[in-house]
Amino acid sequence: TRGKNETREASSRHLKEFLDEMQTDHIREHLRKFTRLPHLAGTEQNLKYAEQIRTEWLQFGLDSVETVPYDVLLSYPNKSQPNYISIVDHLGNEVFNTSLAEPVPEGYEDVSDIVPPYNAFSAKGHPEGDLVYVNYGRTEDFFHLKKMNVSVTGTIVIMRYGKIFRGNKVKNAQSAGAVGIILFSDPSDYSANGTKAYPDGWNLPSGGVQRGNVLNLNGAGDPLTPGYPAKEYTYRLSMEDGVGLPKIPVHPVCADDAVNLLKHMGGPAPPSNWKGGLSVSYRIGPGFLDGFSKNRTVRMNIHTNNRVTRIYNVIGRIHGALEPDRYVILGGHRDAWVFGGIDPMSGAAVVHEIVRSAGRLLSKGWRPRRTIIFASWDAEEFGLLGSTEWAEDNAKLLQERAVAYINADSAIEGMYTLRVDCTPSLHTLVYDLTKQIASPEEGEEAVSLYESWHKRDNWTNDRDAPRISKLGSGSDFEAYFIRLGIAAGRARYTKNKKLEQYSSYPVYHSVYETFEVVEKFYDPSFRRLRAVAQVRGGLIFLLADSQLLPLDVNQYADSLRKYTQSISQLAQSHPEGMEMYEVSFDSLFSAVQNFTDAARDFHSRLQSLNRENPLQVRVMNDQLMYLERAFIDPLGLPSRPFYRHVIFAPSSHNKYAGESFPGIYDALFDIENSADPQKAWEEVKRQISIAAFTVHAAAMTLRPPA
Amino acid sequence: TRGKNETREASSRHLKEFLDEMQTDHIREHLRKFTRLPHLAGTEQNLKYAEQIRTEWLQFGLDSVETVPYDVLLSYPNKSQPNYISIVDHLGNEVFNTSLAEPVPEGYEDVSDIVPPYNAFSAKGHPEGDLVYVNYGRTEDFFHLKKMNVSVTGTIVIMRYGKIFRGNKVKNAQSAGAVGIILFSDPSDYSANGTKAYPDGWNLPSGGVQRGNVLNLNGAGDPLTPGYPAKEYTYRLSMEDGVGLPKIPVHPVCADDAVNLLKHMGGPAPPSNWKGGLSVSYRIGPGFLDGFSKNRTVRMNIHTNNRVTRIYNVIGRIHGALEPDRYVILGGHRDAWVFGGIDPMSGAAVVHEIVRSAGRLLSKGWRPRRTIIFASWDAEEFGLLGSTEWAEDNAKLLQERAVAYINADSAIEGMYTLRVDCTPSLHTLVYDLTKQIASPEEGEEAVSLYESWHKRDNWTNDRDAPRISKLGSGSDFEAYFIRLGIAAGRARYTKNKKLEQYSSYPVYHSVYETFEVVEKFYDPSFRRLRAVAQVRGGLIFLLADSQLLPLDVNQYADSLRKYTQSISQLAQSHPEGMEMYEVSFDSLFSAVQNFTDAARDFHSRLQSLNRENPLQVRVMNDQLMYLERAFIDPLGLPSRPFYRHVIFAPSSHNKYAGESFPGIYDALFDIENSADPQKAWEEVKRQISIAAFTVHAAAMTLRPPA
Repeated sequence: TRGKNETREASSRHLKEFLDEMQTDHIREHLRKFTRLPHLAGTEQNLKYAEQIRTEWLQFGLDSVETVPYDVLLSYPNKSQPNYISIVDHLGNEVFNTSLAEPVPEGYEDVSDIVPPYNAFSAKGHPEGDLVYVNYGRTEDFFHLKKMNVSVTGTIVIMRYGKIFRGNKVKNAQSAGAVGIILFSDPSDYSANGTKAYPDGWNLPSGGVQRGNVLNLNGAGDPLTPGYPAKEYTYRLSMEDGVGLPKIPVHPVCADDAVNLLKHMGGPAPPSNWKGGLSVSYRIGPGFLDGFSKNRTVRMNIHTNNRVTRIYNVIGRIHGALEPDRYVILGGHRDAWVFGGIDPMSGAAVVHEIVRSAGRLLSKGWRPRRTIIFASWDAEEFGLLGSTEWAEDNAKLLQERAVAYINADSAIEGMYTLRVDCTPSLHTLVYDLTKQIASPEEGEEAVSLYESWHKRDNWTNDRDAPRISKLGSGSDFEAYFIRLGIAAGRARYTKNKKLEQYSSYPVYHSVYETFEVVEKFYDPSFRRLRAVAQVRGGLIFLLADSQLLPLDVNQYADSLRKYTQSISQLAQSHPEGMEMYEVSFDSLFSAVQNFTDAARDFHSRLQSLNRENPLQVRVMNDQLMYLERAFIDPLGLPSRPFYRHVIFAPSSHNKYAGESFPGIYDALFDIENSADPQKAWEEVKRQISIAAFTVHAAAMTLRPPA
Repeated sequence: TRGKNETREASSRHLKEFLDEMQTDHIREHLRKFTRLPHLAGTEQNLKYAEQIRTEWLQFGLDSVETVPYDVLLSYPNKSQPNYISIVDHLGNEVFNTSLAEPVPEGYEDVSDIVPPYNAFSAKGHPEGDLVYVNYGRTEDFFHLKKMNVSVTGTIVIMRYGKIFRGNKVKNAQSAGAVGIILFSDPSDYSANGTKAYPDGWNLPSGGVQRGNVLNLNGAGDPLTPGYPAKEYTYRLSMEDGVGLPKIPVHPVCADDAVNLLKHMGGPAPPSNWKGGLSVSYRIGPGFLDGFSKNRTVRMNIHTNNRVTRIYNVIGRIHGALEPDRYVILGGHRDAWVFGGIDPMSGAAVVHEIVRSAGRLLSKGWRPRRTIIFASWDAEEFGLLGSTEWAEDNAKLLQERAVAYINADSAIEGMYTLRVDCTPSLHTLVYDLTKQIASPEEGEEAVSLYESWHKRDNWTNDRDAPRISKLGSGSDFEAYFIRLGIAAGRARYTKNKKLEQYSSYPVYHSVYETFEVVEKFYDPSFRRLRAVAQVRGGLIFLLADSQLLPLDVNQYADSLRKYTQSISQLAQSHPEGMEMYEVSFDSLFSAVQNFTDAARDFHSRLQSLNRENPLQVRVMNDQLMYLERAFIDPLGLPSRPFYRHVIFAPSSHNKYAGESFPGIYDALFDIENSADPQKAWEEVKRQISIAAFTVHAAAMTLRPPA
């Protein structure tokens, strides 16, 4: 079939052209252009950038570009009544107040509209009480306090950022009875060794603060319109019924302010691993030491408002030549807390360059087999709102037609190597592609990205390949992957996890996330961002243009086997319960075996497929496309109706980290602290049964269709 | 495109052969064969019939036939402790007991295993109390009692069968506080004029009783495994947590026994429309008249057991030649309360003949474009269990691949004309097909079924065509249509609704549903059953073999417009509330307009489709197939997670009848009796918003795909 081979060769030549066209100078320019001004979701400036992107994408040559508005619940500080926290003496005098803003970095002194640090969707109010230090505010931290007989009921808890999503911290504190929450960035979590505070290095200055929302949406999107797009005619819940809104005030402070709040605290000494990097004792409280501060309390003054506000996604398309009803999506957000130097504009600059390069190819007559959709999402920082509303709006189309979703948030969070999180069926494609891309590291000019990555982050002892991780949440792929079951992945440049223990990157969500932090420190040559562009763009290209979808079902089988081993081992940490309640993973292992057999058979049928027969090719491509969909349970995970993926979701205890078999994982998590062990074990059994059914059902989708 | 025309001509010739092959004598034989012995779900005999069907379908020539087991909750009387109801005197003596069985019809005296009349899934127990007569036990009947200040709390209610599904009656009585429920067949509801009681006619004898389940499953399938197939490894809820199981005893009695229970009742006289056809006063109670029966009460003695039992579906297939991954399903149940002369074997005999005819065509070299699946469902009478478990088992495949589901329950319930209930997109196909089938009526040899039907049941003044109704529930299409959103329809021969006021057909679910009731009265020539076979079979044929799917999107648009007018008129019966709470249907009308435009555009693109291009044909067929799916809301209707179709579902008040926009309908139903009118109206607004969104989303699926 010479004709087909020629087609494949042409596609391969086009891929090379597409990757080669991406240029470091262009990425630098895109990043420079889109980070000059703050562009918080819902502001004029973020709409201006949307319009600019629309115009430029059209100039680059996309077939169509539109801005798509939604009216969602956002949250802003009150401009005339600033938020702050006080230490109050016994007469009610404010003897200490936290700062109202971060020191503005050099060169940005004249910029207006820098939103002061705040936690979006905080409740309003003026709670007053004793402080309790609760470490990271994790489930296990609150368990520890309980064991120590420290009650947080009626207190204001102070906890450090890091380890888990801040919304989970807030949920835990609220459940424990706190009346207010203070979050701070501890140097042990937000400073790296060997560098200095910005602008002399890339560490967070002691006056810098991490902004961020404190919702517990679990994938609901706009809190007032869960399950439906927030259009003009859409029914809105009352604010009291809104999804995931905290009921108490929450506010973030810088390390300097944290020292002032913590330094006089009394109560028991903390466990050693609760001590951070500030020069304070990290005593737990409640309240201040006897003596100097004895009758002093802490008062929060929070005036943040929730407000339904219009946001704008930008959606661009390249129409597929042969299968216009098959969609490959590249989406990333545009809204930023301030300048968004890293988050998200390092990613948006990369998408911009991918669009430009695709446009060049189009102008030379190329057109992909399938439709490509590029998305610039709005209001990601407020709960993934733009991407989720669009997913809700287009759910029926996406369910039937979406082949894959590639996420494009921050393209860089470190200077070490590539990081990829994706669904197992994409592993092979990621490896194949990265072998065709050059390493961006100095001195590795002749080395592929794959080799460079492999050398720095080998998977495990049992597999000699670069590590790929599971998808969690915390970015815009969530609705596409976890709610709709669309194969998804993300790629960025990252730090050396073995050496760099700090959470995220130090200046995360602060005013110091500027163009300069990337240009001076993270990627002066812009070669790392180009490599990320080539990975993200190459994935989109190959998913859209390959005759047979480059999805590997055998890899999914291997991963399911590993996850099953891992979750059954976790369960074995409770041998008595396993025996008493007759809990067995046999049904799940058997389902995985069935899936493995079905995958192997499918793969061998694929080898003998007649590629000249368009219907036969479509039938098998549909099986490949719908495999990920088969893992979706329309009933959702327990109490999380919008998390529907039975194989991958964050645990209920930390939105950031992806767990495999999250239903079983959460049920096991509850064993230790359940008042009714039988009920807790019954739930484990129920979840194993659901997992086994789902894997069997997925196996059926790979069998010959009639 | 001569080649294609030839293909279409061949397909049309094959359809004629297929329809002509169906023979009255064969249908008579099939019905005779499968009605000799009782074959209740879960019994040996029903498994034997399953095996026989499997064998014969293979002999007929299907590509594959398998029996597919599930282990579901069934319910049987206790053989050693019969169920009955007593009148008890003040000393506790049973002074009257209801009969333990129906008189067995002639010719069946030696048959064992006739299950005595009972209500499946009744709670066990011996409640005792005063009787209250509650008419049909509808929501409005209980409202009426409330207005009359008659409390049913602590009483045993007696109500007549008819008008609504018996499970809804039981739910209403239980919610009202009754401790037991007696159901009876009143002659005004179960006897027709102009005929006699069986065996001299087709009326229900005064000793005859309607069996039936009293669940409130709302589409859940097996009560212990809602949402998942009841396999060996499947987790089962405890009986207390089972879905839809009544908490109080329920038992059915014959008219003779009802007379004895009702004749001495005291209390207020009933409204005139509460009076049935028995020679009693129909006084409401509570309790008996002063005097003779004063200190007498009623006691129920119910020993029915719930038991997890294995059931068997039979699934046969013809593999599609070109699109094996597109499924057209013809399914009907096999299990019967006793012989199943009408319900379901008149339908099963028809399916058997369709399979035979399809096999003949296959043997001549024909093969349909798409895959055809034939199903003989088990345990329909116990809550649509066989069909629902299979739908749950195959949900992922069906969602992606099912084109249509045609239901095949009882093929005849009257002697007048055709009755069709189906989704709007099938209307045109039904009309086209029935023009190619002959009327079965004597003296109409030269008349088409369409004309015969049209003459007897013209739609309305505004449309000159035979009436087609909305699908409700109460048969096996439920999971396919209302849960999964697969285009569905059903066809049978029916009575003249204008003249024949009785509910259902008189011998429904009694021992008198024999082969003879069909052979002697309903269809002596078996031409009516053949006509039904030709309709059901012809639908399957055309859906499976047409190059372009014969689904009419414009018809869906027309229907949506009518439904919207109708529901907005219903809302206008509350003009004050509409105004006070600013309720508007504008968003829904606007969505319907959008859908109408999209449908018209789609239809004109269809005219210019290049039928030589297999991918382009597939793309548009996929849009046609997935249109019905677009009306599914994964969140389900309020409190009914398995009823997911936003356009069609039964109301919460009667499972039998299909309502359009059921979410809005139920919300409006609640207005009158809500304690919190604002909340009730907010729910109406929310439901209008969901409907508008869903119709917009469905419109999007019809637009050009990129």
